[in-house]
Amino acid sequence: MKLEGKNAVLEALKSDVKINKVLLIKDIKDNFQQKVITILKEKSIPYYYVEKEILDKESETSHHQNIIGFMSDYQYATVEDMLFLANEKNEDVFLVILDGIEDPHNLGSIIRTAECAGVHGVIIPKNNAAKVNETVIRTSAGSVNHMLVAQVTNINQTIRDLKQKNVFCYALEANGESIYKCNLKGHIALILGSEGFGVSKLTKELCDQIISLPMFGKINSLNASVAGAIGIYEAVKQRKI
Amino acid sequence: MKLEGKNAVLEALKSDVKINKVLLIKDIKDNFQQKVITILKEKSIPYYYVEKEILDKESETSHHQNIIGFMSDYQYATVEDMLFLANEKNEDVFLVILDGIEDPHNLGSIIRTAECAGVHGVIIPKNNAAKVNETVIRTSAGSVNHMLVAQVTNINQTIRDLKQKNVFCYALEANGESIYKCNLKGHIALILGSEGFGVSKLTKELCDQIISLPMFGKINSLNASVAGAIGIYEAVKQRKI
Repeated sequence: MKLEGKNAVLEALKSDVKINKVLLIKDIKDNFQQKVITILKEKSIPYYYVEKEILDKESETSHHQNIIGFMSDYQYATVEDMLFLANEKNEDVFLVILDGIEDPHNLGSIIRTAECAGVHGVIIPKNNAAKVNETVIRTSAGSVNHMLVAQVTNINQTIRDLKQKNVFCYALEANGESIYKCNLKGHIALILGSEGFGVSKLTKELCDQIISLPMFGKINSLNASVAGAIGIYEAVKQRKI
Repeated sequence: MKLEGKNAVLEALKSDVKINKVLLIKDIKDNFQQKVITILKEKSIPYYYVEKEILDKESETSHHQNIIGFMSDYQYATVEDMLFLANEKNEDVFLVILDGIEDPHNLGSIIRTAECAGVHGVIIPKNNAAKVNETVIRTSAGSVNHMLVAQVTNINQTIRDLKQKNVFCYALEANGESIYKCNLKGHIALILGSEGFGVSKLTKELCDQIISLPMFGKINSLNASVAGAIGIYEAVKQRKI
């Protein structure tokens, strides 16, 4: 994976993103470059001065701003890894399943919240959904490196498998039981829907229960990652406080 | 205030943002333009076909994409308006005070959550903070039009005034009492800090209590608008459920 542009590279360097090497333009020694080189030296990350033509050739966005960082591809985990982790920590399973979140900012934000909340893993679908990319890593403030994320071919099959393992599956959606009246203790998975369409019909039907956040306004539209965060932290409160 | 570009104008038209007029380019009659004109007619918003040169001249971003919408400037409310509103609704005062949120996406997101939660108003500082602009309106999904937002010169003076009126002021910050152990009923204001620095020292000292979200991860850094949302909804739970 490539990180292109001053901000992207600098933010990644400041976070826990693992960068393998950095290409910098030759012949420009400005403050920004000095700052970056100081961090590269501190972190012992190899860097090379190259001609503009090489940066142009390596660039996939054509906005490299004279700097490109190279990361290894993100290593996805499996759902089994998450169950092992919960078992190892001697905790009830606490998973978040995203049914088609498309905006990488939302994916990054949910991973960030999940990390703070001690969630054991975030499960995303392979197709028609945001993947872990540079934007996700940045929005997650580096917490994606401390969170198991699994890509699965079929969310519904995953839910069926989890139910077999006595994981109670809650879909966070409109028109369900108030989340504040539900028991979120024990082995649970919280299923969050996509930005435009919420949790899909079949997935909702598979879930053990639909739970909702109470709404008191006129617009009553919460951002997907905000709704997810409120749901995740209500579970935290019930499980850990 | 001007809205420039296809998405910005279309989203505003679909939301409750009040648009006074729209300039469209002459001689291009594509699907997008037809869609926009249908909505403009439905909403009885005046629109004019103009030469590209006029759009170029009116544009402040030079990314007008052949369409510019004109809105009235946002009308800020006062803190008194918020207190009147709570009184009128026969509810205990519930305010959110932002101590220097700089990112308009975060401001929009917090306003959106506050609207869903039935908060009476959001108070922001006049200086060194995001103002209600096009990005805020868009991120708030139009809910800014249903939420009182006040700009004050001095947040700390506002907190002093509110305390005089028996509004209990909670700063949401690290290293405070767990929010889940605090009583968020009655007249309250929830003070949320800036993205980089949290709630400032003097403001924290002025607040009646510092309250915190429990953290169970390694990175433990919640986005400002996400932390705010969790705090706002914990208050909702205690007050309305």
